[in-house]
Amino acid sequence: MTKKANPILALERAPAPAKKKKSVSKAKRAAALPQPKAHAVSPLAPRIARDLPPLAGVRFAAGAAGVRYANRTDVLVAAFAPGTQVAGVFTRSKTSSAPVDWCRSSLTGGEARALVVNSGNANAFTGRAGVESVRAVAQAAGAIVGAPAAQVFLASTGVIGEPLPHERITGALAGIFERAATTGWLDAAKAIMTTDTFPKLATAQAEIDGVKVRINGIAKGSGMIAPDMATMLSFVFTDAAIPSGVLQSLLAEAADQSFNCITVDSDTSTSDTLLLFATGKGARHAPVTKANDKRLASFRAALNDVTQSLALQVVRDGEGARKLISVTVTGAESDAAAKRIALSIANSPLVKTAIAGEDANWGRIVMAVGKSGEAADRDKLTIHFGPYRVAAMGQRDASYSEAKVSTYMKKPEIEIAADVGVGKGKARVWTCDLTDGYIRINGDYRS
Amino acid sequence: MTKKANPILALERAPAPAKKKKSVSKAKRAAALPQPKAHAVSPLAPRIARDLPPLAGVRFAAGAAGVRYANRTDVLVAAFAPGTQVAGVFTRSKTSSAPVDWCRSSLTGGEARALVVNSGNANAFTGRAGVESVRAVAQAAGAIVGAPAAQVFLASTGVIGEPLPHERITGALAGIFERAATTGWLDAAKAIMTTDTFPKLATAQAEIDGVKVRINGIAKGSGMIAPDMATMLSFVFTDAAIPSGVLQSLLAEAADQSFNCITVDSDTSTSDTLLLFATGKGARHAPVTKANDKRLASFRAALNDVTQSLALQVVRDGEGARKLISVTVTGAESDAAAKRIALSIANSPLVKTAIAGEDANWGRIVMAVGKSGEAADRDKLTIHFGPYRVAAMGQRDASYSEAKVSTYMKKPEIEIAADVGVGKGKARVWTCDLTDGYIRINGDYRS
Repeated sequence: MTKKANPILALERAPAPAKKKKSVSKAKRAAALPQPKAHAVSPLAPRIARDLPPLAGVRFAAGAAGVRYANRTDVLVAAFAPGTQVAGVFTRSKTSSAPVDWCRSSLTGGEARALVVNSGNANAFTGRAGVESVRAVAQAAGAIVGAPAAQVFLASTGVIGEPLPHERITGALAGIFERAATTGWLDAAKAIMTTDTFPKLATAQAEIDGVKVRINGIAKGSGMIAPDMATMLSFVFTDAAIPSGVLQSLLAEAADQSFNCITVDSDTSTSDTLLLFATGKGARHAPVTKANDKRLASFRAALNDVTQSLALQVVRDGEGARKLISVTVTGAESDAAAKRIALSIANSPLVKTAIAGEDANWGRIVMAVGKSGEAADRDKLTIHFGPYRVAAMGQRDASYSEAKVSTYMKKPEIEIAADVGVGKGKARVWTCDLTDGYIRINGDYRS
Repeated sequence: MTKKANPILALERAPAPAKKKKSVSKAKRAAALPQPKAHAVSPLAPRIARDLPPLAGVRFAAGAAGVRYANRTDVLVAAFAPGTQVAGVFTRSKTSSAPVDWCRSSLTGGEARALVVNSGNANAFTGRAGVESVRAVAQAAGAIVGAPAAQVFLASTGVIGEPLPHERITGALAGIFERAATTGWLDAAKAIMTTDTFPKLATAQAEIDGVKVRINGIAKGSGMIAPDMATMLSFVFTDAAIPSGVLQSLLAEAADQSFNCITVDSDTSTSDTLLLFATGKGARHAPVTKANDKRLASFRAALNDVTQSLALQVVRDGEGARKLISVTVTGAESDAAAKRIALSIANSPLVKTAIAGEDANWGRIVMAVGKSGEAADRDKLTIHFGPYRVAAMGQRDASYSEAKVSTYMKKPEIEIAADVGVGKGKARVWTCDLTDGYIRINGDYRS
């Protein structure tokens, strides 16, 4: 059975992160690089970011290549046991990054031997140079682990449109791979942060035919977050033995219930990447060859737990976020219509600023339902804020108490529910509030 | 020929608005009402908000009914000469307000004898009570001007979901209509303001078959602005004699080139209303019976001028706006696709915050093109900021000068152009930047 042992869904104030100096390999160049901006840790951060247990068949290490910032681990590598299977889900952006294109085409092989992730530069909209950068990094990593470049998976996050100084990465790779070990997940999660204010990790156990397997995942993301996907990198690993085709089907399903249900700012990245690696080096279990194999039920549930935990951590770290908001829509024409209405509410700047102001301005929910373009019966519309029904049958609820609802609005987690009264479609999405913090972070991100 | 005499398109710093005390009819009740929040006048406001010349067949007056705020003119009435023709364009929200429903159904008659507009309360999502409120106000105004209720047009703007205290309006109507005169357009424009920081007016002259006619318009709007329509009320008046069917066609066309090309925050109101009244009381001209009559060319151009001026004033008054941004997209599969891409850019919080920060972050334009879902050739994408080509053929322009472009970004008006390289579709839309001012205004609008 799935164990919901993940402590990082707990919502408590985060302590100030421990100060820890990273050793910088090339102190001289580092001194010339700008220092990253420090943003206060999100008040919605989990209380403790715990490390994860080792996972057979995965070794990794993080290092500082000085891609953009000094004194910051900005490259994460992972080395996988031979035969590791891989699946991936990517941004639907029409201007996808060079690493996304690379991964999409490499997925056809089904096998992965290494992963190289850098932060600081997205290698997006970098033309021919960007394509050459991904090839150079993949070849360098492939040479180190003894695999073809096509079995090296890549992801980059950071500024769009700047050529990636890939020689800084290739120059640092050998030293980083040398240190690869089965421990240090927390450092791995930190290495891929950009404007994130806390590292994001999740783990779960599952059983396949009575045999225990484990799933570990890390993610980064805090702005430019919208389906499909959220702007986000996430890497999930399991020691189970599952062929890539089955893995792909499980991952697509998990993404639809997690990363594709979150939005911070409605902006979709060029670089969203979710990869799932299955090493097959855990305890031996019966082979599975089909996604609908019933013996995968526990694994499927655990994978959904991990991806949903990671997705919610991304929302909790939404740029400037002070409130986590869930939006549930029922009574729509279809589930897809319900999701569009839910996203219309979740992406509405007026809804999000009202919640930032702890204002029970449910009129803006009415507005957002109306603007979605989906069928809704204004005169049957019912809206709840948490346990409080604020509107019903096309008008303010007779029992509405501004005082009670205003008290509810002060909570760090707000639940909005709208029944639009025309059918049975339902959906749930998550977002955060829109605060001056978002403006501050994004008004000078590049500088 | 159309005279582009409208001075309010000029972009200069606005002086502090003249302080002018409104007389309050019911001082006692007024004292119990909250005072409206004062927001600093938009730096993009026109230098002078000039009054408009009289227009034969229209008399109007504004008054303070205390709908929501004390000491504020919040009701505007207009009385029209018998036979005045009317056309209207409304929000496409599925949760449209009671006055919008009322106007839509009244339009079928084609004639208007009065207009009653209130600010402070949108009479939206107010159920049966809302329907009764519009009927009560229309009947009261109709009785005063001697016309059926169906010839009274209504609009309300303000908070959603609060029952409209219509008896405050009906009680004040007789006194306000009594003062109706052909002068005082500036006060009329002020009466319909909510979070607006300056009144919005425009005027133009045209000729129909050699005879001079005039068009005067006023508008309000500054948040919850998105096509279709912008969240916005606008009332346009002409002394020309044009039948309602022709008027409707001209107005729909003008709206598509003005109010349907602006966005402040992507949020669509329940209450957007654009009405055009033609009194036929100006100088006598040859009758026109078809929208494609060539003698309407000058009138059509003048109407487009007036609506576009008003629409741009709305963007200039976008909540918290410090920059006016035009977004031009070319090379799309169709004009409609170009408009969707342009709106994807114009509505992107990351694009808008970058411009607020005067950051030439053209990578976010790439992102916004990519997320639109429309066909675009990443490797042919060309982006300009004003005169500067920052990106071409899928990468940063070779001649890109950060210093020059950064200087450009300090201007109050920013022009973004993107050619997406797949076809001949083109579109232009306008928006404003996203600043902490927007957050402040909307985080506590109701309180």
